[in-house]
Amino acid sequence: MLQIPSQPGHIERLRGNFTGKDILSLEQFSAEDIQTVFEVTHEMKRIAVNHLPSTRLAGHLLSLLFFEPSSRTFGSFCAATKYLGGQTLDIQNPETVTSVYKGETFEDTIQVFEAYSSAIVLRHKQVGAAQRAAEVADVPVINAGDGNNEHPTQTLLDLYTLYERFGRLDHLTGLLVGDLLNSRTLHSLMRGLALFPNNTVYLLAPQRLRLPGDDILSLRARGLRIVELAREEDIPRDCHFWYWTRIQKERFASLDDYQQAEQQRFVATPELLARYASDDMILMDPLPRVGTIDPAVDRDERAVYLRSQIRNGLYTRMALLALVLGRA
Amino acid sequence: MLQIPSQPGHIERLRGNFTGKDILSLEQFSAEDIQTVFEVTHEMKRIAVNHLPSTRLAGHLLSLLFFEPSSRTFGSFCAATKYLGGQTLDIQNPETVTSVYKGETFEDTIQVFEAYSSAIVLRHKQVGAAQRAAEVADVPVINAGDGNNEHPTQTLLDLYTLYERFGRLDHLTGLLVGDLLNSRTLHSLMRGLALFPNNTVYLLAPQRLRLPGDDILSLRARGLRIVELAREEDIPRDCHFWYWTRIQKERFASLDDYQQAEQQRFVATPELLARYASDDMILMDPLPRVGTIDPAVDRDERAVYLRSQIRNGLYTRMALLALVLGRA
Amino acid sequence: MLQIPSQPGHIERLRGNFTGKDILSLEQFSAEDIQTVFEVTHEMKRIAVNHLPSTRLAGHLLSLLFFEPSSRTFGSFCAATKYLGGQTLDIQNPETVTSVYKGETFEDTIQVFEAYSSAIVLRHKQVGAAQRAAEVADVPVINAGDGNNEHPTQTLLDLYTLYERFGRLDHLTGLLVGDLLNSRTLHSLMRGLALFPNNTVYLLAPQRLRLPGDDILSLRARGLRIVELAREEDIPRDCHFWYWTRIQKERFASLDDYQQAEQQRFVATPELLARYASDDMILMDPLPRVGTIDPAVDRDERAVYLRSQIRNGLYTRMALLALVLGRA
Repeated sequence: MLQIPSQPGHIERLRGNFTGKDILSLEQFSAEDIQTVFEVTHEMKRIAVNHLPSTRLAGHLLSLLFFEPSSRTFGSFCAATKYLGGQTLDIQNPETVTSVYKGETFEDTIQVFEAYSSAIVLRHKQVGAAQRAAEVADVPVINAGDGNNEHPTQTLLDLYTLYERFGRLDHLTGLLVGDLLNSRTLHSLMRGLALFPNNTVYLLAPQRLRLPGDDILSLRARGLRIVELAREEDIPRDCHFWYWTRIQKERFASLDDYQQAEQQRFVATPELLARYASDDMILMDPLPRVGTIDPAVDRDERAVYLRSQIRNGLYTRMALLALVLGRA
Repeated sequence: MLQIPSQPGHIERLRGNFTGKDILSLEQFSAEDIQTVFEVTHEMKRIAVNHLPSTRLAGHLLSLLFFEPSSRTFGSFCAATKYLGGQTLDIQNPETVTSVYKGETFEDTIQVFEAYSSAIVLRHKQVGAAQRAAEVADVPVINAGDGNNEHPTQTLLDLYTLYERFGRLDHLTGLLVGDLLNSRTLHSLMRGLALFPNNTVYLLAPQRLRLPGDDILSLRARGLRIVELAREEDIPRDCHFWYWTRIQKERFASLDDYQQAEQQRFVATPELLARYASDDMILMDPLPRVGTIDPAVDRDERAVYLRSQIRNGLYTRMALLALVLGRA
Repeated sequence: MLQIPSQPGHIERLRGNFTGKDILSLEQFSAEDIQTVFEVTHEMKRIAVNHLPSTRLAGHLLSLLFFEPSSRTFGSFCAATKYLGGQTLDIQNPETVTSVYKGETFEDTIQVFEAYSSAIVLRHKQVGAAQRAAEVADVPVINAGDGNNEHPTQTLLDLYTLYERFGRLDHLTGLLVGDLLNSRTLHSLMRGLALFPNNTVYLLAPQRLRLPGDDILSLRARGLRIVELAREEDIPRDCHFWYWTRIQKERFASLDDYQQAEQQRFVATPELLARYASDDMILMDPLPRVGTIDPAVDRDERAVYLRSQIRNGLYTRMALLALVLGRA
């Protein structure tokens, strides 16, 4: 990864840049920003792993507004806040956001919770909800997923998992498998990889779920090397990582379309790894994994989806919270 | 407002009066009690605004029992507890109060949560629920709204908002608009204003939603001056505050009745303010505002409903919690 | 109860035995283990009763995964964690465990929350769920009830209530009333009593809800003396405790069967106590009590179900958490 510049005060300035900022999209991060987040993440890991009581967020309360339920992301932000000594105000069930049902506008609801808290973590099924919240709230808004649009902390944890394993985010080769058409996770990961030089991704998707040509062009224009594969047999043996995603039923217009795509889906099995995976690659999945990775692979040391990938989600979120609240 | 008496120990005694008490109704407060709450509120604001880590409620756990969901009031009490270093036990979804569904009596449920906590904050749709809880619980019970009956912390925050702005709670003139027949908030606010001398309210309501004659007589007997207005054109230009409330659909016997009332409702618009509002008045609303205040008014500095009114709800609740737990 | 051995370091070793352990079933406890839990429980009571701020669990986060709602048990574990300075990650509504609805396996969900927390408290309606969780999780799993199978902390609190009142767990005589066929609570309590010498239980149940012969044999083989009673008139006057349980509608194949059993149920009334209960006995119920104990009994000093029994649930859970996290 990039070298840390040696000017005194430079690190402080980089970290200070995050104070009070919204985290809405991966697009807002430069390579240097990502490096800054990862340095803080490294410190956060030490706090969480050793259960070191921290008071960095003492006196701070975060509103976790989950208009759309998501137990994993909710749990990760909740844990991140509390490991840093902060507190949460949990609204994780949309039916309890009762004012909404009385006809209150989204903007009013955001301004109410803004008054109670130091920052808002927002999950919402509408594209652009985080942006709308950020426009009315003076406190930082962190996007914890807005529909099919953005989920920047997922990509940060994915990139951190690669960085921690390989010591860099450039000169990496990955295999991306599954729903290349709809997966927010994969789209965002590719944009992240494009921030660093000499990265290559191989794409393996059912026919109907291939990455649109426009996206391929745009990502190539950013510097990412993209190779589409037609069959498992074409997987190169030297990938640094495989990233598997499920086929999301809710994205299909009809059940027929879904079932057709399902029949063409690829599954990560011990046999597939034995045949095409290198010894020091890692196998990733954003979870839940449903029909993506055979549980027989779980015991393989290269499988990180239930181990470091989940844990890195906690550490990167701790880092972001500390950064936006000026306590990094 | 009233002068603070100069006897040594007097303030301590006034604050001590709250220790262990239930907060069930605005009726239980004298003018001196309200003054005491507001002094503590002022200190609380300093803690919350500056994110000063407080340990006043360290070792204390509050049960937030929301049998009826209310995200705003829940959030406010949750934040109030945590800013003071206390913890909450959150039961904000009625379906999770499972014993109730197994046939447990309300009184048994209250006694169970009493055993776990230093105080109980209760929201319930049944009139009198807070009173019933207080009868069986030895720990303080704070009424966070029991049906159409009482919601004393709403009125305290409203009065504090007036007090903070005008430096007194007497010699004030207000315009109350909306559902004067059913609004718990307005009824309680008028009783609060009646505790202080020389206050006047002008009432503006759709024909079917006027304040009943008995209520007018009883409030006048308490010393509140009441003037009913027939039309917007009669609004006097010297009001210190306007207080707007929505017409609550759930209060109507039929949809027809509701729609008729709706057609007659009044809306706070920039034009209305321009014509009848003084420069230093404030515009209040208990929220959610649905059909009450035009969003175009939000940018007006006199609009406090999304700003100090919400925040004062947090500070007054912090004050009450500190008082009833003997940590003020 | 057993004498505390005098060897130096023995107590530390006994407590240390719990560190990192799962708490799945009462069966895993020896008499000495129970004694150890109770010594710690005694210390915990002092912390909770006096609201002494504790930092024993500082830096620790517990996932409270309630796949099946249970407000009382949830509240008790939540309070236990927070009184010890720990934090909780609350998933108390099964619908919010959204990954489950996306098809994620139970084992994956457990491993996700394991990554966020120091221990998992699990409530689930499936028999064996806690065991399955313990098999995949490296952190301690505490069974907060898995269907009709086990609820070890309920039995610990029941035994502690007896121990606190009588200063021993041997040479006790109890009356067990209600659904002897299905009650998890009673089965487990009898196994607990069987760990100590010279205990006797009298059983009083509707005809269809008697304890199966196999269970009687197996408990007798463990050393518990069991006497079945046919009628209230046969209740001996010297019982140390009465333990009442409700007839659980959900256990019956048909409504008819349930109603028949209901008609034969026994109710603890002031008259029954006057006739058959000794002056220094205690009356217990795991709650909710529905058709088991007449509220007129509540004021009787011997009634502990809404007092020490509930509170002891908090203290024993504090003790278990401190023990499994190595902070006792």
